[in-house]
Formats: sequence, C-alpha cells, structure tokens
Amino acid sequence: MTGPAKPVVVDTVQAVRFQVAQARCLGRRIGCVPTMGALHEGHLSLIRAARQRCDYVVVTIFVNPTQFVAGEDLENYPRTRDADLAACASVGTDLVFAPSTAEMYDPDSLTTVRVHRITEPLCGRHRPGHFEGVTTVVTKLFNIVQPDAAYFGQKDAQQAVVLRKMTRDLNFPIEIVVCPTVREPDGLAMSSRNAYLSPEQRRQALSLHRALDGVRRAVAEGRRDAAGLLAEARQTIKSAGPCSIDYLEIVHPETLQPLTEVDQTALVAVAVRIDQARLIDNLLVDPSGPA
Amino acid sequence: MTGPAKPVVVDTVQAVRFQVAQARCLGRRIGCVPTMGALHEGHLSLIRAARQRCDYVVVTIFVNPTQFVAGEDLENYPRTRDADLAACASVGTDLVFAPSTAEMYDPDSLTTVRVHRITEPLCGRHRPGHFEGVTTVVTKLFNIVQPDAAYFGQKDAQQAVVLRKMTRDLNFPIEIVVCPTVREPDGLAMSSRNAYLSPEQRRQALSLHRALDGVRRAVAEGRRDAAGLLAEARQTIKSAGPCSIDYLEIVHPETLQPLTEVDQTALVAVAVRIDQARLIDNLLVDPSGPA
Repeated sequence: MTGPAKPVVVDTVQAVRFQVAQARCLGRRIGCVPTMGALHEGHLSLIRAARQRCDYVVVTIFVNPTQFVAGEDLENYPRTRDADLAACASVGTDLVFAPSTAEMYDPDSLTTVRVHRITEPLCGRHRPGHFEGVTTVVTKLFNIVQPDAAYFGQKDAQQAVVLRKMTRDLNFPIEIVVCPTVREPDGLAMSSRNAYLSPEQRRQALSLHRALDGVRRAVAEGRRDAAGLLAEARQTIKSAGPCSIDYLEIVHPETLQPLTEVDQTALVAVAVRIDQARLIDNLLVDPSGPA
Repeated sequence: MTGPAKPVVVDTVQAVRFQVAQARCLGRRIGCVPTMGALHEGHLSLIRAARQRCDYVVVTIFVNPTQFVAGEDLENYPRTRDADLAACASVGTDLVFAPSTAEMYDPDSLTTVRVHRITEPLCGRHRPGHFEGVTTVVTKLFNIVQPDAAYFGQKDAQQAVVLRKMTRDLNFPIEIVVCPTVREPDGLAMSSRNAYLSPEQRRQALSLHRALDGVRRAVAEGRRDAAGLLAEARQTIKSAGPCSIDYLEIVHPETLQPLTEVDQTALVAVAVRIDQARLIDNLLVDPSGPA
C-alpha cells in the first residue's frame, strides 16, 4: 500500500448502519466528522484528530438546508464532491456518508431539536433558526452513525458550545471533541466561504484575526475593560475597508453572556459581512495567558 | 427456579449504560418499557410484549415533571415503588431504571425535542407543553438505554403517534411497538389515574368506552357522518353524570386532523374530566370492520 485505502462512499442511512455495525462488531471505536463538504485544512484537521483517537472514521458530507436562513447562500454554497472524496482518502477515512436531502428529510418531517438561551446571542441573533437546523441534523447524524466521538471545529465556537450542551442534555453517549481553528499562514481562519472573497476582500478579511489578536494581547498586558477592548477591535475592522459587523463581543465561553470585565477565560467572537461573504472568527482569551 | 429472577434496580445513567452494555455484548436484543410507575395491567402487557420479542427487558420508572402542565397532578401522581418492583419481577424484567429528577435533568438543562403539528390537537390543546416534555424525556431515555425496541400503549394514542413520528424523523434505530389498550372487564381503560375515582365516578367513567364503542358499532353498521356520530357519543357521556369534556373527536390516525366522513380507519379519541381526574380513551374504528 502506498497510502490509506479509499473510503467506502454511501448515500443511504441503511448503508451507513450496515457499514458501522460491522465496525462496531469488531470492537472498533467510531469517530464521526460531520461536514457540509468543500473540505479545507480545518476539516482535515478534524479527520486527522478522529483518525488518531478512533479506529473507524466516518465523514458525513451534507449541505443541510435547514441550517441556512432565508436569503443565505444555500444554492451557491461550494460543492466539490470529487475533491472532498480525495481529501478524505488522503487523511484516512473509512466511510463517507454523502446523502441527498430527500434521504435525510422526509417531506413531512415534523421534529426539531432546540437548545434554548445559548442559541440566542451572537450568530443566533443574526441567523434565526440556524442552530435549530444544526442541532436537528446533528441529532439525526448521531442516530444514524452512532459514533463514540464526534469532532467539531473551534472556528464555529457557538456551534461547538451548543452541540456540547445538546449532547449532555439529551444524554447522547458521545464524546464531543472541539479542535483548534486552523488558519492560513497570515492568520485568516480557514472557511469554505473564503472562496467568495476577491483578492482585495481577502486582504481586508485579515482584519478579523488582527482585531481578535489585538484583544488577546491587550488582555495579556493587563487590560480588563470589555467595552474599551471592543471599541479598539471594532476600529481595526472598520478601518480595513467597507464591511458590516454583525457582532463583535466578549462573552462567557459557556453561557455566551456578555462580560464587562475580562477577569476569567473569555470568548471574543466576531461576524463580519464583506460584500456577499459572511465571515466569523473567534479567540479564547485568558487574563493569565501569555502575551 | 420458581419464577423469573428479580430485576436489577439502578438509579443512575452510568449504571444503566454498564448493565445494558453487558447485555449488548452478549448479543441480546434490548427492549425498553418507559413508564411513570404506578404499574397496572396495561404496563404489564407492555413488559410481557417486550419479554416475548426481546432478550433483555428494561423498565424505566420516572414521574417526569416536564410533561405535567402547571396545575396538574405532579405532586399527587401515585408513587408505588415497592409494588412496581414486585410487578416488574412477576412478568420478567431484567433491569429497572428508577432515577431521581436530579439524575435526569441538570438544573441548567436547555435542550428540548419538539414534534410540531400533530402535538397541537387533542391532548396537546389542553395540555400545552405536555408532548414536548414527553418527546424530550423519551429522547433522553432512548439515548440512555439505547434499546432495539420500545413499547408504548395505544391507550395514549396521540403519544404513540407522536413518538413514532419523532423516532422516524430523528432516525433513532429503534422499533416502536404500540400495544392494545388493556381494559377492566367492564370496559374501563386501565389508567394510573383511575385511582382518583370514587366508586360513583368509577361507574360514570364507563361512559367513555360506551360512547366510543357506540361510534364503532354505528360505523360498522354503515354510518359515516362524523358530526352526527360525535353528537351521540357526547350525549352518552354527558348523560352519565357531571363532567367536562376536553375533547371528543374523530381524526385521521396519523395526522390527527379531524375527519368529516369515516371512510377510512379513524381514531375516535376522548378526554373527560370527572372532578379531579382527567381520563382519556380511544378506539380505532374501521368502516370495513366487524360490528
């Protein structure tokens, strides 16, 4: 063999159950990486993490319509199936589940899973219904794959907090693993939506990480006032070019409620619209951390 | 041995997982009977059905606070633990899970499971939030026990329809088995809430089944007009004594939408309050069925 074997690719729930049941019978630890495809290094880092800690790795590729809000980019969301399958193979994936929308949702589907409160601020405020779409489809994927562990990126910080809470509240016997955000060498967080950016917008988008990192350094140097820190970060983003800031906040890392003082580990989270692209980024900052 | 062995009784999620994992390792088919205790012949028929089709039977006993609506009988709901355990043993139960409320719900629990539309009519209209409590706790019990099959009574017809839909919509790999209503010799549907009835009210309560059976016989004889059938059934109940009818309807057995003509299998469902007791009953009627 010159590399990892090609994954088995299936598109039905029944085929997943069959494949995974075989792995489970052999006593394998099952890891699942739910994605919407358009795989980049961020996704691959999740698959590698699953590969390291599990014996059988399932990647799901499904552009879930119920987590797109009206007017969003559902139709234009990048779909790169062949490249995705090659990427999965390159890092060692056992099974790819790439269902159709019809396979995932009965037309008369009536059931939703909702996490209250922590879905309201940040992205929840600007994408009403988004997280209900996420928690419902992830519940379905959990029940289809029945993994021992599932892997998500810190890039989608609120999603990670919401899914951790859902998993605990509903007693899913699944370990939720959140992996660090993967960045381009210049700091831009990897995202399938970066493909929407022109070269000029791509340069402008660097301001998100620059602003977050500015908060991190200021906190490490002793600054504690959230309002002042946020004003400076906002200035960093606004001066980089025309954009609309959906939110820029310093919040508690689990309750996602705004903090006025950074006297504990805090999540600095931002969402910015640059033309058609909506970009998010975040950083956990620690008042006792390194500068 | 002179009878079935006593069940193992546990009160923590961890202990259930441990016990069931052992059974699963041995290749056992796991059956689950979720109950609120106060077990009667109706529950025992569910346990017997599970016993027949599964190798390892789990009964859960949990008076779930989230499915009681404000002003209902949560505090007074009958709790008969010792008798329940003896009853479980008598019909062959492997594991009883009887958790505390604290074991089932974190105080900061934020997640709910909701089935839309079919939870709105009938009991849903009179017990707002009831079914969300049921679907959420059953999701949790499904994730804790991870059974191959779960058993519910036709007595709670809307609950059965809702849970079947939830199970399919969320891709739980669980067979939902609905068992016939068990009745006293005189026709009264078994219910833990029958304990609330005085002897006089107990006689009055027979009017529910008498009314439903009247509809069944009329349909078998060729009657099709729902409005006329319901008027007669209502008269039967009202003339039996003072009571308040929450609902009395003829509906589609899956969508639970009202039918005007009984030209297909239909669900006739009733809920009546007699003093403090709220009683429900139902019958599936079939225009081509026996008189």
